[in-house]
Amino acid sequence: MDVRRFKCTCSYDGTNYIGWQSQKRNDSVQEAIEKVLNSISKETITIVSSGRTDAKVHAKGQVFHFDTTFYLNESDWKRAINGYLPKDIYILDVEEVDETFHARFSVVKKRYDYVIHLGEYDVFSANYAYQCPYPLDIEKMKKASSYLIGEHDFSSFCANSKDVTRCQIRTIDDIRFEVNNNTVRIIYEGKGFLRYMVRMITATLIEVGRNCIDVEAVDVMLKACDKDVCRHNAQPQGLTLVYVKYE
Amino acid sequence: MDVRRFKCTCSYDGTNYIGWQSQKRNDSVQEAIEKVLNSISKETITIVSSGRTDAKVHAKGQVFHFDTTFYLNESDWKRAINGYLPKDIYILDVEEVDETFHARFSVVKKRYDYVIHLGEYDVFSANYAYQCPYPLDIEKMKKASSYLIGEHDFSSFCANSKDVTRCQIRTIDDIRFEVNNNTVRIIYEGKGFLRYMVRMITATLIEVGRNCIDVEAVDVMLKACDKDVCRHNAQPQGLTLVYVKYE
Repeated sequence: MDVRRFKCTCSYDGTNYIGWQSQKRNDSVQEAIEKVLNSISKETITIVSSGRTDAKVHAKGQVFHFDTTFYLNESDWKRAINGYLPKDIYILDVEEVDETFHARFSVVKKRYDYVIHLGEYDVFSANYAYQCPYPLDIEKMKKASSYLIGEHDFSSFCANSKDVTRCQIRTIDDIRFEVNNNTVRIIYEGKGFLRYMVRMITATLIEVGRNCIDVEAVDVMLKACDKDVCRHNAQPQGLTLVYVKYE
Repeated sequence: MDVRRFKCTCSYDGTNYIGWQSQKRNDSVQEAIEKVLNSISKETITIVSSGRTDAKVHAKGQVFHFDTTFYLNESDWKRAINGYLPKDIYILDVEEVDETFHARFSVVKKRYDYVIHLGEYDVFSANYAYQCPYPLDIEKMKKASSYLIGEHDFSSFCANSKDVTRCQIRTIDDIRFEVNNNTVRIIYEGKGFLRYMVRMITATLIEVGRNCIDVEAVDVMLKACDKDVCRHNAQPQGLTLVYVKYE
């Protein structure tokens, strides 16, 4: 039987999940999707994503692939999977790809958005934005973010001690801000990000915006390449994986 | 001890509640708020709202009042209540009022919004909008809605058989549409609405938009004054009580 590989683009509201990755607790996004695939195919399918997302983090365009000998065409796979998924996960696209495609290794670019709600607490964005009770100086945050664009050793903005032996050099292509009424959206684009990197950078930019630290302190922190200099991690619910691009 | 009356404006995400009203199941918005008030005041406080909302229906500006002899000023009440409320309920404003104010009887105007998400299913609006997979003819819906504006007997758009002996005459001041990308917002304003009235009217307008019934059929249904002519009730999560106005 022919083994076929399918690339899937999916969205999920991460509020009720412990994150993307399976952790034997049966409440990860990955397990929810694998359970459906196994039920349809009667195979034991393991899906491979572009990367993990943390508990409560959302995705508008996460990508994963899986291999199967069970035959369904692309649109039938999409319809079948969505028919069984819980309402907070949805498959946007299914595409048959050749075996050289790999959801993690073939990534060219990713975009993460971090959303901050300013002013009075808002019940409707509580699961989708950091509720920030302080005024923020956005211009200072923009200046501070400019130090981080480009190729750097991001050891200072990485929480995972297990990563210490690995290469911590990453390239951020762009960080930009969209301000709309009480909502600040910080858009991060780059090929890849270290664990907690976007949330730790965001927490640091918020510190700048609150005038707790100077704009230049961000440059000093970055150059320190010391994972102990940044102790803050912005709340997960503000973060969304917006898209993953491939060649 | 002096009894004081406080008027409170609150917002809630109704996703996880059986509705506004207490039903002995301990999962209504009213009970969640009363529990906090009782805990602060050590009294047994019953709050009186502008009206009920159904299970899963949201509010951006529901109003209720309560009487107490426990002394806190307005801003301290607000801070104290919000400190104990779950994250999906929030008090926006507390105002001391005199005993002639009544949250239900003093209402002058209410606004309800019904939100429809068109096109492909969206996980992020699943709890806040009806996910409509059909294209809608908005111009036809607007024409049909014009029959409903003004003072009418709305018996045809009322699901509650217990209401049959009561007056079913209500006045809708305005119904208007805001269309923005894939989102259709239908805005209803009037002094008061019968139970399920907004959702039944919305379901009927959707039927018109889908070309399942004619524009003129809405006028026929209205004039029938027969609660059996409308069998549809739009899904609750699309509905939000936006504000309640008083003299």
